Amino acid sequence: MKKKYLLAPGPVQIPPEILLEMAKPIIHHRTPEFEKTFADVQVLLKELFNTKNPVITFASSGTGAMEAAIVNTHSQNDEVMVIENGKFSERLALICKAFGLTTHILKIPDGESVSSGEIKKRLDENKNIKSVLLEYSETSTATMNDIESIAAVVSKTNALLIVDAITSLGVVDIPCDKWKLDVVIGGSQKSLMLPPGLSFLWLSDKAWERAKTSTLPKFYFDIHEELSALKKNTTAWTPAISLINGLYIALNMMKDYGWQNLYKKNVQLMKLVHAGTHALGLELFSKSPSVSVTAIKVPAGIDGNKLVDKLKNEQNITIAGGQSELKGKIFRVGTLGWIDHSDILVFFGALEVCLNQMGYKFAPGASLKAIQEELINHAQ
Amino acid sequence: MKKKYLLAPGPVQIPPEILLEMAKPIIHHRTPEFEKTFADVQVLLKELFNTKNPVITFASSGTGAMEAAIVNTHSQNDEVMVIENGKFSERLALICKAFGLTTHILKIPDGESVSSGEIKKRLDENKNIKSVLLEYSETSTATMNDIESIAAVVSKTNALLIVDAITSLGVVDIPCDKWKLDVVIGGSQKSLMLPPGLSFLWLSDKAWERAKTSTLPKFYFDIHEELSALKKNTTAWTPAISLINGLYIALNMMKDYGWQNLYKKNVQLMKLVHAGTHALGLELFSKSPSVSVTAIKVPAGIDGNKLVDKLKNEQNITIAGGQSELKGKIFRVGTLGWIDHSDILVFFGALEVCLNQMGYKFAPGASLKAIQEELINHAQ
Repeated sequence: MKKKYLLAPGPVQIPPEILLEMAKPIIHHRTPEFEKTFADVQVLLKELFNTKNPVITFASSGTGAMEAAIVNTHSQNDEVMVIENGKFSERLALICKAFGLTTHILKIPDGESVSSGEIKKRLDENKNIKSVLLEYSETSTATMNDIESIAAVVSKTNALLIVDAITSLGVVDIPCDKWKLDVVIGGSQKSLMLPPGLSFLWLSDKAWERAKTSTLPKFYFDIHEELSALKKNTTAWTPAISLINGLYIALNMMKDYGWQNLYKKNVQLMKLVHAGTHALGLELFSKSPSVSVTAIKVPAGIDGNKLVDKLKNEQNITIAGGQSELKGKIFRVGTLGWIDHSDILVFFGALEVCLNQMGYKFAPGASLKAIQEELINHAQ
Repeated sequence: MKKKYLLAPGPVQIPPEILLEMAKPIIHHRTPEFEKTFADVQVLLKELFNTKNPVITFASSGTGAMEAAIVNTHSQNDEVMVIENGKFSERLALICKAFGLTTHILKIPDGESVSSGEIKKRLDENKNIKSVLLEYSETSTATMNDIESIAAVVSKTNALLIVDAITSLGVVDIPCDKWKLDVVIGGSQKSLMLPPGLSFLWLSDKAWERAKTSTLPKFYFDIHEELSALKKNTTAWTPAISLINGLYIALNMMKDYGWQNLYKKNVQLMKLVHAGTHALGLELFSKSPSVSVTAIKVPAGIDGNKLVDKLKNEQNITIAGGQSELKGKIFRVGTLGWIDHSDILVFFGALEVCLNQMGYKFAPGASLKAIQEELINHAQ
């Protein structure tokens, strides 16, 4: 009978409307019905990516689209630069290395973002760098990079800007065409409120031009095959039919809410989390906090792993702990997808109960009071 | 209000029990709950593959596992032989070529299977061939290869036998260990009664040994990453959570029915389709008919594409037409997954109505009578 809350930075809670759509009897994908849905989805995906260019949909988790981004735009021995500030940007570098690219790492301390000036300096120093790869929001440290200013730098060079936006797409406004991004990667289990199993890839004209001469081997993630299929409103290989039917509902829900309303709501939710955090005397981990997920430092004397377990086992709230060397040191609360300020109240209510039981001192209700003040005075 | 029947060779009809399982609120995948399900699924997958070795699950459609089979067991410039007898075996060859393998094609006419003797001859002639790749059931021509006899030949050499069993797994008994197969590929939307979006890969000890020295580039489909994760009851990258929860139900349904009962039922269903076909004076296309799908020649004077469209638009029955050069010449009826003899009666009832309307001559009820005779006299 207890209510459960999933407040991780993905997967996120799925609206019943989407779950029930995906539970309908399956249809064959080589039919006018599926092609109609896929065409409608394409129109909506272009609104999500703010673009005139096609958006490719793969049956894979987000890592698949990360690979697709890299193998379709590079050739043997190309030099690339990866901005590494956490676990997911490390994965971008691992993929580049797996495919034999000469991979320069620009290491940024955990919790910090990269400056566009630093990127400009590196590109000026090495004109052979074919691409700059980075995370929009590095989920492991809840840190957002300033993609607009970075794009302003990279777009003036021959290099491509490859942005993993898996946890940012649909959370913040990403005007791909206007900002002159080159490659943008998305996934289904984040703001799109779906189960994992779909990933997305968008390319600028500059990136499509580069893709024409790419010689890295590929087949399943070959964007040329997908582009041909897309023109016939289908996919090159068998699509994840039920997820695409769910995607149609999800995108329509987002559009009905209003894209800009959605982005505004997400910033408000982040501010509510920050307000609750500060009111409990806790600190944010990131110096450049993400809108999608907030990382909060575990206070001295508290076992961070135990806190995450208590929230799950006693309060039925699933959040994320820290990964790798941050394990036990931070906990992370997602504010993306199907989530409202009510969820933030529920989370902080439960957090107060757990922290109190673990001996941490604060005035009961302090975080909820601060959230209400922020909500009533500023965030509406 | 009209009832709809999906009788394609995949995707297939999905039992409501599975649809509803997948419609439950999503859980996070880095939790003991998911890991328990994934561990249970692994035990059942080993029963399906008749093996002691692990079975890897990817979030991708079947083509992804085809790529995984190839890139994990080969190195640059390896020579391979693909037995090409239809569209899906052609895809195996395309993947080999995309990754730079020297690809020998043994072309078999559409509708015919390859003999183990022919394969032995080729392997004797060229000792450099590292792998033999083929379809268990070539879905485009509804033709089954005799994998047991082929395995008896290939297992005596250093070559690997790589079998695409996407439409055969769970349809016929595939004793992977006993027959000494090397790599077996599966997909979710066939006998496993799920939506597309999961694929499977099994390797023999011999294939795992080869995989250790494989130098082809890979990341998303890297089986070493998946094997490490599997030991912790999870996947390397984010799994398609809802599909895996559905898979747990599907595998339990199959096990409860009894693996051998299932394989026996599928052969019976094929025989019922053959009986109905012959009773209408129609002919099978394949000289080595598949258990998973039956291809029936379109009779002279009938428009095959129109027949498939009529079945769909007027009778609400989705089957498959011919692909590429077989378009309009054959139609294909799947008998895999969640299907019973009742579905065969429904299909032939509708087929008779359509053929009659299109001017084809036969005694009304002839196919249903033949199916009942087969069912009552032989198939029970």
